[in-house]
Amino acid sequence: MARRDDRPKPEDDLPRADSGPAWRAQVVTLFPEAFPGVLQLSLAGSALKAGIWSLETIDLREFGIGRHRQVDDTPSGGGAGMVIRPDVAAAALEFAAANRSEDASAWPVVCLSPRGRRFNDADARSWSRMRGVTLFSCRFEGIDQRLIEEFGIEEISLGDFVLSGGEIAAQALIDATVRLIPRVLGNQESADCESFSQGLLEYPQYTRPRTWRNRQVPEILVSGHHGKIAAWRRTQSEKLTRERRPDLWRSYCAKHGLNDEGGS
Amino acid sequence: MARRDDRPKPEDDLPRADSGPAWRAQVVTLFPEAFPGVLQLSLAGSALKAGIWSLETIDLREFGIGRHRQVDDTPSGGGAGMVIRPDVAAAALEFAAANRSEDASAWPVVCLSPRGRRFNDADARSWSRMRGVTLFSCRFEGIDQRLIEEFGIEEISLGDFVLSGGEIAAQALIDATVRLIPRVLGNQESADCESFSQGLLEYPQYTRPRTWRNRQVPEILVSGHHGKIAAWRRTQSEKLTRERRPDLWRSYCAKHGLNDEGGS
Repeated sequence: MARRDDRPKPEDDLPRADSGPAWRAQVVTLFPEAFPGVLQLSLAGSALKAGIWSLETIDLREFGIGRHRQVDDTPSGGGAGMVIRPDVAAAALEFAAANRSEDASAWPVVCLSPRGRRFNDADARSWSRMRGVTLFSCRFEGIDQRLIEEFGIEEISLGDFVLSGGEIAAQALIDATVRLIPRVLGNQESADCESFSQGLLEYPQYTRPRTWRNRQVPEILVSGHHGKIAAWRRTQSEKLTRERRPDLWRSYCAKHGLNDEGGS
Repeated sequence: MARRDDRPKPEDDLPRADSGPAWRAQVVTLFPEAFPGVLQLSLAGSALKAGIWSLETIDLREFGIGRHRQVDDTPSGGGAGMVIRPDVAAAALEFAAANRSEDASAWPVVCLSPRGRRFNDADARSWSRMRGVTLFSCRFEGIDQRLIEEFGIEEISLGDFVLSGGEIAAQALIDATVRLIPRVLGNQESADCESFSQGLLEYPQYTRPRTWRNRQVPEILVSGHHGKIAAWRRTQSEKLTRERRPDLWRSYCAKHGLNDEGGS
């Protein structure tokens, strides 16, 4: 965990992967103990241990005011909940900024909030090509609006639901991004075929046993005809997307010059 | 420092399990060590300790085949990644089912997958009124399609991005649901005013100090006129929703008999 008296580290002190400096995630949070959490497991965890990416938590409480290190106060105008003070949040964000040297265009600063734009696959791909990201994990009722304007923070949402805090959302965004850093996925082909990468949901998958409870793996998948298999999968992806996600389907048709029935 | 809503409450203030059966989350996963993870902190964590809800992880590996307890195999028809075998997954889901007595209508069985319908606030509210939920945390190429059909599993997605596994998604869905169980939130008013509950994004929040870096808290919020404050907030919520989320705005207008400009 980074503390406010840590000095900014020169790039050379950072863990290095073979291909250059590690991708960095900075998370400002009241619950630094929530990290790395799930991110120490599996794919993201191996990449973290290998130095392909690094994780710094910045404890918002360290920047709190007074003996009790107060970080929030009641909402102006009344109402339930508490709002993070702009001065406290600014101190934490300025500490984070001092601990990196990259220019702002290569380093998004994001607040996790259900009011924000929904995070998606394109964001993950874009972030994975940057040097790192700073995530401010708001608690419930959020952060003073003036901070958002002063720092030009982008509000990003995990989805149309409310979490008790931004820590899980931060972990989701980091996981989705880290797995797209080159060399993290064992087989890059996986990321190119999966849901969203082509603007479609992924086709149904099957594996052994070939017969299970009187249900068969579709004949075509065991035919060995690679061309036919690819065509079947494409058709299944299109059918699924059209049924489940008319919004994605419309974008896909527009992009490929198709009408809504999938014809040209 | 007083945080009214998301500060862990003293356990004595919370209802005990004997005030009714606890809401239950069952999670089938290859990474049981990922749980409770973030869910042991803050709001969900206090409610877990107080017995308002309970968490059971079911280790998929225990149901694997052979000496190596294999749970997946290569995709039929070729391609990258591995697919969870239907027989192994079925054994785990049948174990989960044997460990609950509720009828199926009060207990969703869900597979976490980017191919699924996107989880939203209405799902969280609906699930919080049920007895529990079983979440199958797929790994990366997913699960054999025959299992999904045989068990009538609903595929649910966290959003339009791909995670390295379903564990973070499971935690997000559980957190969003648990906080809506009656009496988990300190002040129910919070859940009624927040984003999505009224079909709108939440208005901007402000707190002390009243002046910060030459930026003022809007005059109206310190006016003491409760009616004007409520009207201002409603206008801000509508403006924000219209700008950021035309899809939500259209639904809101349709529901309230307004045209797209917000007039009636």
